[in-house]
Amino acid sequence: MLRPGQPLPLFGFFRRLLGQDRAFRQAIATVIGRTPDNVRLYHLAFTHSSVVRQQGDTARHQSNERLEFLGDAVLGAVVAEYLFRKFPYEQEGFLTELRSRIVNRESLNGLALKIGLDKLVQLDPAQGRAARSRSVNGNALEALVGAIYLDQGYKAARKFVLTRLIKPFIDVKSLIETTANFKSKLIEWAQRQGKTIRYDLTGQPRSGGVMEFSATVLLDDEPVATGMGLSKKQAEQLAAERALAALGV
Amino acid sequence: MLRPGQPLPLFGFFRRLLGQDRAFRQAIATVIGRTPDNVRLYHLAFTHSSVVRQQGDTARHQSNERLEFLGDAVLGAVVAEYLFRKFPYEQEGFLTELRSRIVNRESLNGLALKIGLDKLVQLDPAQGRAARSRSVNGNALEALVGAIYLDQGYKAARKFVLTRLIKPFIDVKSLIETTANFKSKLIEWAQRQGKTIRYDLTGQPRSGGVMEFSATVLLDDEPVATGMGLSKKQAEQLAAERALAALGV
Repeated sequence: MLRPGQPLPLFGFFRRLLGQDRAFRQAIATVIGRTPDNVRLYHLAFTHSSVVRQQGDTARHQSNERLEFLGDAVLGAVVAEYLFRKFPYEQEGFLTELRSRIVNRESLNGLALKIGLDKLVQLDPAQGRAARSRSVNGNALEALVGAIYLDQGYKAARKFVLTRLIKPFIDVKSLIETTANFKSKLIEWAQRQGKTIRYDLTGQPRSGGVMEFSATVLLDDEPVATGMGLSKKQAEQLAAERALAALGV
Repeated sequence: MLRPGQPLPLFGFFRRLLGQDRAFRQAIATVIGRTPDNVRLYHLAFTHSSVVRQQGDTARHQSNERLEFLGDAVLGAVVAEYLFRKFPYEQEGFLTELRSRIVNRESLNGLALKIGLDKLVQLDPAQGRAARSRSVNGNALEALVGAIYLDQGYKAARKFVLTRLIKPFIDVKSLIETTANFKSKLIEWAQRQGKTIRYDLTGQPRSGGVMEFSATVLLDDEPVATGMGLSKKQAEQLAAERALAALGV
């Protein structure tokens, strides 16, 4: 029997739900710096596929993977513009390389942790640490950018990326110093050893009109390591990186 | 000696320049569907690196390569959103594959010709046909998207891509039919031959926290062809495509 003043059980259920929702909304507002409109998008952004996979493969679109695809693209555009403006005299290859240093999985995972996304991500508890140690948080960050884009538009997503990720946490100068250093490091090492370095490059057309390049580092004409990439530079970089590892430099 | 009413020579020079400028501005307005503000950006978008390379490598930022980098990213985001909304139940892999079919070099070259960009591109005449036959026009199209983005903002660039490129010229249905068909085509062929198809997959970490996958198609346990890619699906697709070519199917 209900006493006067006691809320109806159903009402309590809704209140609990609303309370949770309010807390989530507040958490999102803190992270993105503005009040979300469509909270469902943000719930989706933090739903790892392991949670919905239990419901079968047809439910997979209810995970954050699709938002991750969208957010990855939006993030790429925002960072492209940022670098384009910041380095007016640098060429395309430099910008491409630097962007990949900013939006690679490792970097995104780090950024996600810095803004506390790990506390919001919904994982299948059975997967636990294994899943979490991989790229779960970085992927959720991309999905979050996708959610902001759909919920608040490009400008808001851009502002989030620039003011909450890049400017506070990305040290572009130190990135430049580590970028493109494999090739020069290898050359310097070879010069000290009195040896020559040469790159053997081949290109092969791939599906979709893309070229795939393969670069082999030759130390005194002996092959040391090979790298592949979608540009000559990328292939050479990777080859140099692997050569340094193979040579124990 | 100047007669009365005859314009000063310098004035004539400016008038000629302004006349050219007006014609170019009009051409851009026709292509993008709105009046450009900063015409210099569009001039840059149509300046192939062969034109400025004559002036030495330091002038290379005065070619369209940087704008191409930016436009490629913006185009990627717009097409990502378009596909995200159009296919609400499809997974990330499907969207990624379909987008790459829309924004690959071949497709962009075709689109560029359809909207007449070849008449606007500035090339070193010495390079002539060789350069033009490659990806010059598709690259100029990407650069144009970058120019619109900087000149008019994301919304205008998005509108251009959707209303002037995708909707009039991209037949998404037929793209889907050719997408992801290599694997199923190969399986069907193998079934008719009473043979088995298996994929051997390996993953290798690359610089930047990215995984590079290699897939080898095994026909009755004999390797036929290998493909590489940044996802398992991509690697298998490419391997299947090459296997079909190798088997003459």
